[in-house]
Amino acid sequence: MLTMQDALARLTAYWSGQGCLVVQPMNTEVGAGTLNPATFLRVLGPEPWRTVYVEPSVRPDDSRYGENPNRLQTHTQLQVILKPEPGNPQELYLGSLSALGIDVAAHDVRFVEDNWTSPALGAWGLGWEVWLDGLEITQFTYFQQAGGVNLDPPAVEITYGIERIIMALQNVRHFKEIAYAPGVSYGEVFGQSEYEMSRYYLDDADVAANRQLLELYATEAQRMIDAGLPVPAHTYVLKCSHAFNVLDSRGAVSTSERAAEFARMRRMAGEVARLWVARREELGHPLGVVEATPTATAPTVTPTGESAPRQLVFEIGTEEMPPAEARTAREQVRRELTERLAATRLAHGTIRVLANPRRLVAVVDAVAAREEDHVRTVKGPKAGAAFTADGQPTPALIGFARSQKVEVDALERVDFNGVEHLAVLRPEAGRDATEVLGDVLAKVVTSLRSAKNMRWNDPNLAFTRPVRWLLALWGDQVVPVAVSSLASDRQTRVHRNAPAPTFPVASAEAHLGILADAGIVVDPDERRRLIVAGAERLAAEVGGRLDVDAERSLIDQILYLVEQPTPLLGRFDESYLRLPEAILVNVMRKHQRYLPVRDAQGGLMPYFVAVANGAVDADLVRAGNEAVLRARYEDAAFFYRADLKVPLVEMRERISRLTFTDKLGSMADRSDRIAELGRVLAAALDLGPADTATLHRAAALVKFDLGSQLVTEMTSLAGVMARDYALHAGESEAVAQAVYESELPRSAGDALPRTLPGALLSLADRLDLVAGLAATVGLPTGSSDPFAVRRAFLGLLAVHRAHPEIAGLSLTEALAAAARRQPVPVAESVLAGAAEFLTRRLEQLLTEEGQPVDRVRAVLPHAARPGLADRLLAQIDALVKEEQFRALAEAIQRARRIVPAGTAAGYRPEALVEPAELRLHEVLTQVRDALPAEPDLERFNEVAGAITGPVNSFFDEVFVMTDDLDLRAARLGLLATVRDLGADLLDWEHLRM
Amino acid sequence: MLTMQDALARLTAYWSGQGCLVVQPMNTEVGAGTLNPATFLRVLGPEPWRTVYVEPSVRPDDSRYGENPNRLQTHTQLQVILKPEPGNPQELYLGSLSALGIDVAAHDVRFVEDNWTSPALGAWGLGWEVWLDGLEITQFTYFQQAGGVNLDPPAVEITYGIERIIMALQNVRHFKEIAYAPGVSYGEVFGQSEYEMSRYYLDDADVAANRQLLELYATEAQRMIDAGLPVPAHTYVLKCSHAFNVLDSRGAVSTSERAAEFARMRRMAGEVARLWVARREELGHPLGVVEATPTATAPTVTPTGESAPRQLVFEIGTEEMPPAEARTAREQVRRELTERLAATRLAHGTIRVLANPRRLVAVVDAVAAREEDHVRTVKGPKAGAAFTADGQPTPALIGFARSQKVEVDALERVDFNGVEHLAVLRPEAGRDATEVLGDVLAKVVTSLRSAKNMRWNDPNLAFTRPVRWLLALWGDQVVPVAVSSLASDRQTRVHRNAPAPTFPVASAEAHLGILADAGIVVDPDERRRLIVAGAERLAAEVGGRLDVDAERSLIDQILYLVEQPTPLLGRFDESYLRLPEAILVNVMRKHQRYLPVRDAQGGLMPYFVAVANGAVDADLVRAGNEAVLRARYEDAAFFYRADLKVPLVEMRERISRLTFTDKLGSMADRSDRIAELGRVLAAALDLGPADTATLHRAAALVKFDLGSQLVTEMTSLAGVMARDYALHAGESEAVAQAVYESELPRSAGDALPRTLPGALLSLADRLDLVAGLAATVGLPTGSSDPFAVRRAFLGLLAVHRAHPEIAGLSLTEALAAAARRQPVPVAESVLAGAAEFLTRRLEQLLTEEGQPVDRVRAVLPHAARPGLADRLLAQIDALVKEEQFRALAEAIQRARRIVPAGTAAGYRPEALVEPAELRLHEVLTQVRDALPAEPDLERFNEVAGAITGPVNSFFDEVFVMTDDLDLRAARLGLLATVRDLGADLLDWEHLRM
Repeated sequence: MLTMQDALARLTAYWSGQGCLVVQPMNTEVGAGTLNPATFLRVLGPEPWRTVYVEPSVRPDDSRYGENPNRLQTHTQLQVILKPEPGNPQELYLGSLSALGIDVAAHDVRFVEDNWTSPALGAWGLGWEVWLDGLEITQFTYFQQAGGVNLDPPAVEITYGIERIIMALQNVRHFKEIAYAPGVSYGEVFGQSEYEMSRYYLDDADVAANRQLLELYATEAQRMIDAGLPVPAHTYVLKCSHAFNVLDSRGAVSTSERAAEFARMRRMAGEVARLWVARREELGHPLGVVEATPTATAPTVTPTGESAPRQLVFEIGTEEMPPAEARTAREQVRRELTERLAATRLAHGTIRVLANPRRLVAVVDAVAAREEDHVRTVKGPKAGAAFTADGQPTPALIGFARSQKVEVDALERVDFNGVEHLAVLRPEAGRDATEVLGDVLAKVVTSLRSAKNMRWNDPNLAFTRPVRWLLALWGDQVVPVAVSSLASDRQTRVHRNAPAPTFPVASAEAHLGILADAGIVVDPDERRRLIVAGAERLAAEVGGRLDVDAERSLIDQILYLVEQPTPLLGRFDESYLRLPEAILVNVMRKHQRYLPVRDAQGGLMPYFVAVANGAVDADLVRAGNEAVLRARYEDAAFFYRADLKVPLVEMRERISRLTFTDKLGSMADRSDRIAELGRVLAAALDLGPADTATLHRAAALVKFDLGSQLVTEMTSLAGVMARDYALHAGESEAVAQAVYESELPRSAGDALPRTLPGALLSLADRLDLVAGLAATVGLPTGSSDPFAVRRAFLGLLAVHRAHPEIAGLSLTEALAAAARRQPVPVAESVLAGAAEFLTRRLEQLLTEEGQPVDRVRAVLPHAARPGLADRLLAQIDALVKEEQFRALAEAIQRARRIVPAGTAAGYRPEALVEPAELRLHEVLTQVRDALPAEPDLERFNEVAGAITGPVNSFFDEVFVMTDDLDLRAARLGLLATVRDLGADLLDWEHLRM
Repeated sequence: MLTMQDALARLTAYWSGQGCLVVQPMNTEVGAGTLNPATFLRVLGPEPWRTVYVEPSVRPDDSRYGENPNRLQTHTQLQVILKPEPGNPQELYLGSLSALGIDVAAHDVRFVEDNWTSPALGAWGLGWEVWLDGLEITQFTYFQQAGGVNLDPPAVEITYGIERIIMALQNVRHFKEIAYAPGVSYGEVFGQSEYEMSRYYLDDADVAANRQLLELYATEAQRMIDAGLPVPAHTYVLKCSHAFNVLDSRGAVSTSERAAEFARMRRMAGEVARLWVARREELGHPLGVVEATPTATAPTVTPTGESAPRQLVFEIGTEEMPPAEARTAREQVRRELTERLAATRLAHGTIRVLANPRRLVAVVDAVAAREEDHVRTVKGPKAGAAFTADGQPTPALIGFARSQKVEVDALERVDFNGVEHLAVLRPEAGRDATEVLGDVLAKVVTSLRSAKNMRWNDPNLAFTRPVRWLLALWGDQVVPVAVSSLASDRQTRVHRNAPAPTFPVASAEAHLGILADAGIVVDPDERRRLIVAGAERLAAEVGGRLDVDAERSLIDQILYLVEQPTPLLGRFDESYLRLPEAILVNVMRKHQRYLPVRDAQGGLMPYFVAVANGAVDADLVRAGNEAVLRARYEDAAFFYRADLKVPLVEMRERISRLTFTDKLGSMADRSDRIAELGRVLAAALDLGPADTATLHRAAALVKFDLGSQLVTEMTSLAGVMARDYALHAGESEAVAQAVYESELPRSAGDALPRTLPGALLSLADRLDLVAGLAATVGLPTGSSDPFAVRRAFLGLLAVHRAHPEIAGLSLTEALAAAARRQPVPVAESVLAGAAEFLTRRLEQLLTEEGQPVDRVRAVLPHAARPGLADRLLAQIDALVKEEQFRALAEAIQRARRIVPAGTAAGYRPEALVEPAELRLHEVLTQVRDALPAEPDLERFNEVAGAITGPVNSFFDEVFVMTDDLDLRAARLGLLATVRDLGADLLDWEHLRM
């Protein structure tokens, strides 16, 4: 059996053999190998660097007293840095797995998108988790930036999670059972330390002392930065980071404190990085300077004399693209190729673009051998102005001819849109297809862009992942493409673990067939069919089925995670079905990309379908995936069982130890405020006894599940677990549901509360958040919104709009009520700002929903009651089709137009004299009396429609601007009253008919 | 070429192959691999533990900005722990050198005594430095105690200094030139860090911040101890240690602070250790429990029927004993064997005991084959009381007979010293020699004791180093010896790297010959001859000579560092001769045990003689030793050159950054006080203009060389370098000498100041030390004397006694003057205590010098002027032979005896009446007037001798105790005056004639 210490030795030896320097772990606590200066500092600047080292990585947060089978406060990373990236880092990595004795052809080894960013380090990179039979064993990253400094050249960072690799290889279920050395288990060696350090990190570390340490470290770090010494400065930044982590694991870090600490560390890390770069330059780059990858030359094409149209195949080979990026890139290639070909005179047939994780393949049928020949016309001066009165060419004409290097006599007269010009006609021969295509395809490659682009060892290209090869064939001929360091040829690549991973393709027409023979499925639709059919067949084998609709977005992802889908049926222990379905499905979908198998009633069965890539050893891979799922479920079950033993009140009590923000108190304080506000909102609505009782009980429980272990682990289950735990604790279905709904919506498009108690608690939650943060942190601006305040505003709008029964509730008034409950004063200006923010969000929302801007603006005065705004918009939509309303609106607008701004609604009726105005006065009085108190456009139309005639008659018969000033005032007042008739209903000014 | 990273990998693999667990370096800064819990905690308790790991060891004090070729703030240790020790750890270690590709047969690999103790850890062990051709490459220790806890079983700790091993193997002269990895040098990888961390540790670390860190760490450590968590507690103790080291390298730690911090760390380390032991016991010792080494059974002897006397050879084989211990053990074996054989009846010839580092060999000639036969007499009751009056045996007699299991009739009458007893006579046959010897030899082994004993894997034995084999032969026969886990046989061992390191010896007579054939020289005298003759021959080859007398104590050491002395001549670059001889000789003798080679005039030549062990490859070993010496000289030259560039005033300025003690200020403060006190002492003595000028200038420089780099490195050169640097700076010979002499004597028996300015500054130095420390720390008690106050007192006495010209100077008065200059108040009681301490030291000293106690006590009142005490003693010694003095002393004693205590000297002469008393009065008056002011016994005798007759006449003729009270008072007063005649000269009471 390969012991853990042997595994470390083998990996070290393997990478050392690849030219990596072996260095030692950092001698101060670090959370990851990345923090070791052998990574963080060495990836900076132009010097080459290859290293391998072990890094015991301390994550106080992961402390579990050694009890959790998969979680350790100190786990062992093996870290590799390759700078510059060697062009084949994935292949080298697979070699390291072989060095561990892993048969990479039999196992399912995959590169699954996982980008990495460290806000505290100002560092990020793009790359993957590497999965071994579904188990994440390595983080593989193209490091792009560190300390805010762009890495040039970028470095490849490979981080192995040693304990989990060894657990898989040794097939043990608890880290303590790992054979660390011959006859000695991991638990025997490190068990006590796991327990004791967990005690320190979770229970016993002195918060005040660690806070002081943090400050002392930060001060020393800054002093060293000021002294121009990046090495000791970096050490102290690392000490800051660890002290912070200790405080965090002790629950002593508020959200705002976290943000401030991260900002400080990021700033210091940035200064350290810049200092390091400067120092290395001063030292003349002791390790030398990486030479840029040379740019490639396109292959020379020997024309074959082929004259018939042939197929074009262009394959852009990449390292595994993220699913969404692959999809986008496919469209991009299609568009670029179509447009660029259209700009040539090369005849061609259908353009198809296919894609899988490792390649984008364009297939163009019947591409002509040459462009058509063609006469190019160069337009000169107008014929009418080209000659002087005596028939001599003007200087302009002479200049034109000279510039075109022809005699004036050789110019022809050509009609341009009916105007005759002198012009040069130049016959041009069409170019060969290969020449034309060479340019076009090169541009297709350079135009590739993704949402997040990365750099690799290519001097010019940037894309979601490295482009590694270009196959370009027109018929039998290689199309000569050269892009930066890449040149086209006829080589394609299949599975990395195939006997011949690279081989030549004879002709364009043969390409897809060759890939198919090698098992590579390039067509996404075909992969989808294979996945769905395979999964359905496997599910059927055990009497189950696949809910294709429910899993659509998961399948969309899976089909871009494999080149050759190989669905496998896995099983998990039935006992796990006792866990809440949300947990099971969440783990399967989100963490493992497994398809759940359901019975005819839609109930979960103890099976799943994993989709491996290629011709793996099915039993081996199945067993691996089952072990991974088991470990994850065991984890969850462990937490779930532990949580069920804790009374709700105790769980609720625990959240008093979770800081919300330093100024806004603990989560328990927040929960108290939500509860109180919820009760206040309910009181205003007259809920009825059942709902009132439900709300009161639910309010007392709000957010209690944040005190559970499971939610601490899987925060996305907040609310879901609250419902589950509440039911288990004997709470009523209604109470459990309301507590759950208080967390809704968790994101845009998420479910909304369907019960009224739930809706009110949801509002109270968001109102509390908004009021407190607006007063302490400010409203979000730009893209920075660490507390998700924007989302809270959107939640307020969504919940309000979903519940017509609370349409009368004013969110701004409720916000003021929330503000009064904050532990800090909330200024009027803050509330005004929040109201304005709400209004803008609603405006944007309604516009995005397709409402005409004028109508949106017309209802915006009701932004505080978005439900009401919705109703008004619906009414507008219906009424604008009715003549009566249109006429009414017009009449009101007519009144608005004539009345000077500022004129008050009100008049002395005694002053009126004309019958038309007396009539208007009479009808207006009746209408005003009959109008409803609540804004209701339909009723308004019914009631106020009566004034349309009188208004129109008034305008026909009465001269408003009489010299009798008393009379004039009465008439204007009358019209102003008409103008204001629906003023509290709509902002009529904006409404266009 | 073996790169450094490969060397680490090879050593790790080698020890991993020996069952060592491979663990990672500690992730907080440590000064040595010992501090890693994989050593410090794991050596505790009964669990087995084998481990190997790399430990980058941080020593802030060793920071040199990367400029010193051999000194790094972070060097790389490779640490191995073997627990229990496997019985052959040295052989395993040699195997590891072979694994590195070192030919241990060609090189000179030696185990040179070096014991290890860590006051801060409460840890110690006994062992060696391992030398490779004179280069210390490894620390090899039998770890005995950690955290104050005895280690049972003890563990072997092997610590490789990787950089120096690699520098030797790669033959590079600066650590930066080490090939760390293929194509990458150590300097390229670590150079910047060396520079920057040196900056931090030496210049830039914030003292206040690090002090705060130290306190915070200590508090957390204590909290974790209180919480019963040894693992985090230990981590914080390590952090304390590092913070302390940082403060120390910044020169911010006073001597008393150091003592206090060490005490705190030692206490905490002890609590951690005890906690760990308790925890492991609670956990049931997860790694199991080491089984005790079984005790051995003596081999069965088949008698050969041999009847002639044969030689006995007894070889006690050990691991390399320290020279002093080997010498002592040799005597011990001789004594034990002689005494124990004498207690048997085995006839034997001469007993010789020989010894070398690895064995004690006893050779006894002509040991008889059997003890002589013999009649044993058991004494019973006296014959006279054995029978009742009627001739019946008394019950006592009957009881005796019964106890001897004989009939009363069988008892015989035997004369015991003239008294007849009843007795039993038992004939006893002599035992075989092997049986007798088996017992005797076993007891010789168990009786072995050294000044500092250690434990190894033997359950019962304790000795300076492990005993590994016993060879015991009487003629051809093995003598059956069994001691604890050891049993005798006929196997001896020769060089560990011999083709057959162990082989059988046919007979006792053959043993020494076999060893000699294998090159092992067992006779120390022979080794001395070989060394001296070899060294003289080699020196002569280059026209030089060996100063055998000067090197006697070094040769005494060397001859116990080798079993087969192989002197080799080495050379060093002539340019180093420009360094002060003290440096060169100090390095050769003390650090390298090389014999200096001198020319006919006694001047140093650029050669040395190293004495290797065994048949090494002379060129290889010579080259290695030369490289070591070059590195050491290069180091010294580096510092020396740097120092010479620094003006004296600047060097003097630097010592203001060295703390003396926290209460007593900096070294500069101390130097100021010494200077002032020196001037004051000189003023009292009327020195003359030249000496005064010398003293004033020297006083201004006192201790300036503590600010030099060389003295910082080699503190034993303080004073010596002061003289050298002063001369180079153009100071006069006299000034340079006085500054040098101010440091004398540096130890008991060291040279004393020969000039008066030097003597006064030396006194001032010691007076300042004593006054300040007595007031702040207290006088030394027991063996604890961290500031060497006792030595300072002895220095005061020695210097004073060496300079008769200052015999009048009172040390207690001078001490009071020193006390007035302290920055702290010095109480009268403190001064009184110091005076008493001084008196007791002088008393002890004089007694040890052989002075009779009575005389010593008689002169002790002059302890403050020990020079005077000396003179008085010399005078006593001369005078006691003279009748006049003896009579005078007797007369004075006679007066003393009759006068009641408390009687004042003084009387009314008018009251006297008798002629004898009048005569006495008259002579006494003359004598008193004639006595010298200064204490001078000779003059006293000359002058006061006149009163002897009158005193004796007085006693003959006058009755003192007359009833006339007036008269009686006058007579007693007269005698009291006689009594007090020499009272300020001697304490006559103590003086015995």
